[in-house]
Amino acid sequence: MYQPPTYGGSHQHHGSIHSTHSMRSNRPSGYGYQPAPPPGVDPTLWAYFSGVDTDHSGSINATELQNALVNGNWTKFDLDTVKMLMSIFDVDRSGTINYNEFAGLWKYIQDWQGVFRHFDRDQSGTIEGHELSEALRSFGYNLSPHLLRLVEQKYASAPVSGYGPPPGITFDRFVRACVVVKNLTEAFQRADVNRSGYVQFSYEQFMSIVLSAP
Amino acid sequence: MYQPPTYGGSHQHHGSIHSTHSMRSNRPSGYGYQPAPPPGVDPTLWAYFSGVDTDHSGSINATELQNALVNGNWTKFDLDTVKMLMSIFDVDRSGTINYNEFAGLWKYIQDWQGVFRHFDRDQSGTIEGHELSEALRSFGYNLSPHLLRLVEQKYASAPVSGYGPPPGITFDRFVRACVVVKNLTEAFQRADVNRSGYVQFSYEQFMSIVLSAP
Repeated sequence: MYQPPTYGGSHQHHGSIHSTHSMRSNRPSGYGYQPAPPPGVDPTLWAYFSGVDTDHSGSINATELQNALVNGNWTKFDLDTVKMLMSIFDVDRSGTINYNEFAGLWKYIQDWQGVFRHFDRDQSGTIEGHELSEALRSFGYNLSPHLLRLVEQKYASAPVSGYGPPPGITFDRFVRACVVVKNLTEAFQRADVNRSGYVQFSYEQFMSIVLSAP
Repeated sequence: MYQPPTYGGSHQHHGSIHSTHSMRSNRPSGYGYQPAPPPGVDPTLWAYFSGVDTDHSGSINATELQNALVNGNWTKFDLDTVKMLMSIFDVDRSGTINYNEFAGLWKYIQDWQGVFRHFDRDQSGTIEGHELSEALRSFGYNLSPHLLRLVEQKYASAPVSGYGPPPGITFDRFVRACVVVKNLTEAFQRADVNRSGYVQFSYEQFMSIVLSAP
């Protein structure tokens, strides 16, 4: 079983950073403008961090993050995905991402890129219906064909017409789709204490679960 | 009680079109390039339709719609809201919006603009927490403070930090927030057949409701 990337563990980053797929390599043109990495800090990751921190404030705000994050087709990450990433990695709730938080964010995105590339079998740059179904199944989520179609349509990167299959899912929305399915499934399982396959929800519980998902 | 705009009724549009708030008035500079309105068609609305239909194909595709729809702060509508509008108004599932469908869409947006302006008490151009709470209450949704905070955070137009209130909600996300609360509440009420305040859901039912909301 393939595991979806998780977060909240150690803030180590991938050994090698080789991708320009999701994070624009906004390296400053003159290295004179870039503060030197603090001792013990990975110089490559520091260079990426400094490149994203375009106003050189020492931390990354939401606008800087959204400007740095692009899909394979060069569209920006959608706001809801950026907000999801900020809510996961801005652990001190400062509203910005410091270097340590960035290390976690970077690893998370790298890990998801690996997942995305793995399941984008036809290397189209988007995840199509059967690729989505394979990805979710490999994570342990056996959604019915009906639910798979709903996920496919909801996270498709363009409106769905009645003709032909929905458009594919770009990287940002694929990550969000997987995290939403994971969150909702886990919330359902927590509520299904006796594993009956059914849960009882009050309106408050139901709405709270749904509105807490990214 | 203030009613949220609905759709699917008669395709009449507002008597006067006075807004450039949500729909850019993309009027072509030379009227020679614009097809004459068919007989019986409102010439003003036809001019708007033709302005949005930038490739003069006779119908509006998703890209044209997204390019035409802007918030008060000139940000584009987010993709999920554009997809929601297409799914509501592309009634023949052609993937595009024809003139008749556009008339419904136009009225819907005009109606929501009225709601938005009404509840944007401080005329900031965004809906803040207490304005949101007033709007939802006026629609008949008495959400708890906890749920209101979740809606406010989820639909805020920027990431939320731990300091201060969340950023306000722009027009596009406000409409989506209200439609989502309406859809989820109605789905809950349909499932709560004996009005006990509790519902029982299978995983399939639960996921289906959540993934069907915009």
